[in-house]
Amino acid sequence: MLMAIGPYLPLLANGNWPMPSIEYFTAFLAYGGSNLVLAAAAAAICAYIAPAAAGSGIPEVKAYLNGVDAYSILAPSTLFVKIFGSILGVSAGFVLGKEGPMVHTGACIANLLGQGGSRKYHLTCNWLRYFKNDRDRRDLITCGCAAGVAAAFRAPVGGVLFALEEAASWWRSALLWRAFFTTAVVAVVLRTLIEFCRSGKCGLFGQGGLIMFDLSSTVATYSSPDLLAIILLGIIGGIFGGLFNFLLDKILRIYSIINERGAPSKILLTIIVSVITSMCSYGLPWLASCTQCPEDAVEQCPTVGRSGNYKNFQCPPGYYNGMASLFFNTNDDAIRNLFSTGTATEYHMSSLFIFFVAIYCLGLVTYGIAVPSGLFIPVILAGATYGRIVGTLLGSISSLDPGLFALLGAASFLGGTMRMTVSVCVILLELTNDLQMLPLVMLVLLISKTIADSFNKGVYDQIVVMKGLPYMEAHAEPYMRHLVAGDVVTGPLITFSGVEKVGDIVTALRITGHNGFPVVDEPPLTEVPELVGLVIRSHLLVLLKGKMFMKEPVKMSGSFVMERFGAFDFAKAGSGKGLKIEDLHFTDEEMQMYVDLHAIANTSPYTVVETMSLAKAALLFRELGLRHLLVVPKTPYRPPIVGILTRHDFVAEHIHDLFPSLNPHN
Amino acid sequence: MLMAIGPYLPLLANGNWPMPSIEYFTAFLAYGGSNLVLAAAAAAICAYIAPAAAGSGIPEVKAYLNGVDAYSILAPSTLFVKIFGSILGVSAGFVLGKEGPMVHTGACIANLLGQGGSRKYHLTCNWLRYFKNDRDRRDLITCGCAAGVAAAFRAPVGGVLFALEEAASWWRSALLWRAFFTTAVVAVVLRTLIEFCRSGKCGLFGQGGLIMFDLSSTVATYSSPDLLAIILLGIIGGIFGGLFNFLLDKILRIYSIINERGAPSKILLTIIVSVITSMCSYGLPWLASCTQCPEDAVEQCPTVGRSGNYKNFQCPPGYYNGMASLFFNTNDDAIRNLFSTGTATEYHMSSLFIFFVAIYCLGLVTYGIAVPSGLFIPVILAGATYGRIVGTLLGSISSLDPGLFALLGAASFLGGTMRMTVSVCVILLELTNDLQMLPLVMLVLLISKTIADSFNKGVYDQIVVMKGLPYMEAHAEPYMRHLVAGDVVTGPLITFSGVEKVGDIVTALRITGHNGFPVVDEPPLTEVPELVGLVIRSHLLVLLKGKMFMKEPVKMSGSFVMERFGAFDFAKAGSGKGLKIEDLHFTDEEMQMYVDLHAIANTSPYTVVETMSLAKAALLFRELGLRHLLVVPKTPYRPPIVGILTRHDFVAEHIHDLFPSLNPHN
Repeated sequence: MLMAIGPYLPLLANGNWPMPSIEYFTAFLAYGGSNLVLAAAAAAICAYIAPAAAGSGIPEVKAYLNGVDAYSILAPSTLFVKIFGSILGVSAGFVLGKEGPMVHTGACIANLLGQGGSRKYHLTCNWLRYFKNDRDRRDLITCGCAAGVAAAFRAPVGGVLFALEEAASWWRSALLWRAFFTTAVVAVVLRTLIEFCRSGKCGLFGQGGLIMFDLSSTVATYSSPDLLAIILLGIIGGIFGGLFNFLLDKILRIYSIINERGAPSKILLTIIVSVITSMCSYGLPWLASCTQCPEDAVEQCPTVGRSGNYKNFQCPPGYYNGMASLFFNTNDDAIRNLFSTGTATEYHMSSLFIFFVAIYCLGLVTYGIAVPSGLFIPVILAGATYGRIVGTLLGSISSLDPGLFALLGAASFLGGTMRMTVSVCVILLELTNDLQMLPLVMLVLLISKTIADSFNKGVYDQIVVMKGLPYMEAHAEPYMRHLVAGDVVTGPLITFSGVEKVGDIVTALRITGHNGFPVVDEPPLTEVPELVGLVIRSHLLVLLKGKMFMKEPVKMSGSFVMERFGAFDFAKAGSGKGLKIEDLHFTDEEMQMYVDLHAIANTSPYTVVETMSLAKAALLFRELGLRHLLVVPKTPYRPPIVGILTRHDFVAEHIHDLFPSLNPHN
Repeated sequence: MLMAIGPYLPLLANGNWPMPSIEYFTAFLAYGGSNLVLAAAAAAICAYIAPAAAGSGIPEVKAYLNGVDAYSILAPSTLFVKIFGSILGVSAGFVLGKEGPMVHTGACIANLLGQGGSRKYHLTCNWLRYFKNDRDRRDLITCGCAAGVAAAFRAPVGGVLFALEEAASWWRSALLWRAFFTTAVVAVVLRTLIEFCRSGKCGLFGQGGLIMFDLSSTVATYSSPDLLAIILLGIIGGIFGGLFNFLLDKILRIYSIINERGAPSKILLTIIVSVITSMCSYGLPWLASCTQCPEDAVEQCPTVGRSGNYKNFQCPPGYYNGMASLFFNTNDDAIRNLFSTGTATEYHMSSLFIFFVAIYCLGLVTYGIAVPSGLFIPVILAGATYGRIVGTLLGSISSLDPGLFALLGAASFLGGTMRMTVSVCVILLELTNDLQMLPLVMLVLLISKTIADSFNKGVYDQIVVMKGLPYMEAHAEPYMRHLVAGDVVTGPLITFSGVEKVGDIVTALRITGHNGFPVVDEPPLTEVPELVGLVIRSHLLVLLKGKMFMKEPVKMSGSFVMERFGAFDFAKAGSGKGLKIEDLHFTDEEMQMYVDLHAIANTSPYTVVETMSLAKAALLFRELGLRHLLVVPKTPYRPPIVGILTRHDFVAEHIHDLFPSLNPHN
């Protein structure tokens, strides 16, 4: 391919440029080959060890924090693959970021800590048992997300805001404080490590300090025409962002068909994307002409053998290849190059344009392969290039530096794809340390988000929907106002008596997957059938395992149960670690005995009357973070419970199956 | 008094210093006199026109956003007094800020907009009728708060976070987005105005641009001993902050006794505080010696006739008075002086110490007088002085500039009194543009907040409690777990039939102040008594005003009512603008007629069973932002409603009156 492109290169005018030779081809093989091996390794561990580690992980964490406990999403194996897969993926030269995976990594570590370690891998700490309940575990994982962003962007405040705006579904001031605490610790640790690495002991880690792309030296002055240009930039950025989400959704749907065929298909797909990426990043710079180094360059020019603004590539000494400076570089350095100010003429328009198209497309095809991959970096890269193109085009009219336009372009793409506002704003501020640009960044984010919101949802929300996770929005859908709670209650309801036969409980647990069962006291225990409360599966299993059975159906005193079980026996177990009904075995005699459920029933379950508006029931369910909502009858002389609403009963598909005539938008 | 101090001044050593003469005394009279007149004017408009405008306003706005609709807190008269009282108060030289009042001003303007203007003052806009419901009005007022902080500190992101962390009780991502939108507009407008004023047309307004105290040029390097010093600074700052809250509470309780005696007492108190403040700011600088101007001073030294670092005061040319630079200056300039770097030897230790004690005490006695007064400026001033004292003390050991220590000191005081974290952090960042200090600021905030939290509540929460506003915390109190919903239901319950006699409704509305009444259908309308729903007072009044009465108790069709009333008739009226029962008059014949309540009843009220844990009921009430929660019976054959829970039923005092034996902390 390189040979074929060679003759058309426009830069042959530059006399002493050597023709592509066999050595360049060998170099490509070495470059592309090592990329391929790294990519295949990443895909292999991802496909065989933890398929859940593929992709960004932010949608899954977001769903988890909404109450969707998807299988193995935060398991130690996922953590392992996320860390090493991300390292391999970034090393393989893909157009992907490490930010999303770091958020997921943070959440996994938090989950591991919240479970008091992992029993499976013999890493346990008993003093971490505090977190044996949903809420504290969720808080801890939110803090893990915040820490991930704080570490990835070296942006502690941005991390807190990301966790607040994008990740968390419930927010309390105590949680804000905990997240802030976490990221403050991250900031201090980062700062200490950077200080320690200042002497160059740790490679590229210490470079740049806490501010990754420092733009603070630039004086930003802008006038009304600039403002108009920036508004236009925001509008087009929003359209590109919305288009990105649209195309990504289509590509992910195609990929999911390929990926479903099994691990070999996943690895093959990754290898194909890797080869395309290598070909682009090695091949496309040949299209650019060599540019003479500027005489007043602050940096060494050309830079050879290290990262920097001016890549030599195939050019003779004293010249640099602008496109190679972008393509043949780490993603971080490419962003730094694009953001750099005072370098208005560094890139040819054609280089920027080719790079933009290539990165936009590569970003789309890379996300979805079986490698941990974040979306921040591709979006920032494409946005910064787009901004720099606009800045270069307007160079004669505008007094703003193209580097600042690159920052605004990145903001417009982030606003257009991710639809975050405050957190992106603060993250960009912490990345660039350019407070003067803040009003402009806010303006661009506003515009691009508004434009893109009129097309589709944010990228993470879209992935949550595509993965079929039953995410509950903070607001009730409009069509729910036309229904009542009783309308969506389905299926045969299984209730237990206050003192129930062991066999009946075991059968119910075996044949259904339900997690909550209403307990009803019936005559002769009470005068009329009366709702006692709700028992959940895991508590039933603990009680059954204790085998506190009775020959006769009589009510026991509650304290008796409490003496038998410790406080932690009923605490929420780590994911995948709870008891299973298959693990319990009972004799026929035991199956005929009785067990008292009063002591373990939640006697204050939240209830709604069957005639309650479904929209209001959904609000109650969502705002209080419930898993089960009991529906009670309105009229007397009926059983004291009509049904149980769970998360799945509020999902749009379920409701539309029940009421096909309902207009989903009204 | 000045004469008396004169002979003891330690600076007489400085030969050519003139003795205080009659001219200095005249100058004091002019200075103190104009302060006094301004202060008296501020107190007069506050005491006579809108007493609610006194103080910061943040606690009241916070309570409003929690659902407490205190009288006239957001009325147009309050807005008027807040704006002009704040201008007068700041001009009078008090140790108070304009930040709190600007938050309150923002909230008042938002309220005015949300009501579609003010009918009383003939300012109405019909197109603003969108906000005729609690939620949207609350959102708008939250945005107003954000705009207030954004304008006061020129900190748009800080404004959003302040509204989130301190003001709002419920937060949705849509609200985040709206608040962000508001502050982005504020930032763009501010920026435009500053650009317009750059030529000096607007006095001091354009100075400093968007960053009020720019510290960005400082390079912050710090080592482990610095870190230890900063931790200590945070601990002591937290103690001082907690002490400030404790003393403020005591002083406010004394003041409230004085202020209750009427407007003249309020004005007298304000005048006394004004005289004390004038005496301090004019008298105390005489205690300081004249210092020779540094030769390498960047600024003009001494500064005469304008704001600046080096105040001449009584010193001969070429000399400046350090304490006058702090005292005899605007609060903003004093903060800028304290934050200024590279001026380590500018202030004598004794000057700083006297200033610290004076400002700490003046800040305490000033808040609570009948003048709009914010707490941010006094706290930042005292904190910055404290930090600079620490920095000067450690000058020989630490490599950090005393100006940076002043920033950290301000952070520690803010953390210790206000207990905000993320928002203070971002506000300080936006004020000083010093991203390098962010990890240290976070650390100091963490420490000081933790320390102070172990003593008492944040200052705004404390004022909310002191004012007796029934604020609902986001969490249920521990003692509520020992009670059930039925325990706290009190008073005779007034219920209406589905078709009720007009006379009964009018009587109920006249003799009680209740806002919600359950509607129960009774035989013969239904087989057994059945709960229809809840009607609220304002809807009842609209229905009664329509006089759709019937001779016989029969059920009407709902559509008939809908034809008679427009969609906006039942919308929530502006505060103080709704109908009152006293305004409606009925003939004896009308009183004997019937009215159908089915059409206006909320048929999906949230309900709890009487045996529901009070803690869970409180959570439901708080999270869903309810005003009425119906308690229904658990057992059959009883009336279908046991009682109504309102905000007051969850207040600690009410519960402890009912159950004196309950331990409030368990």
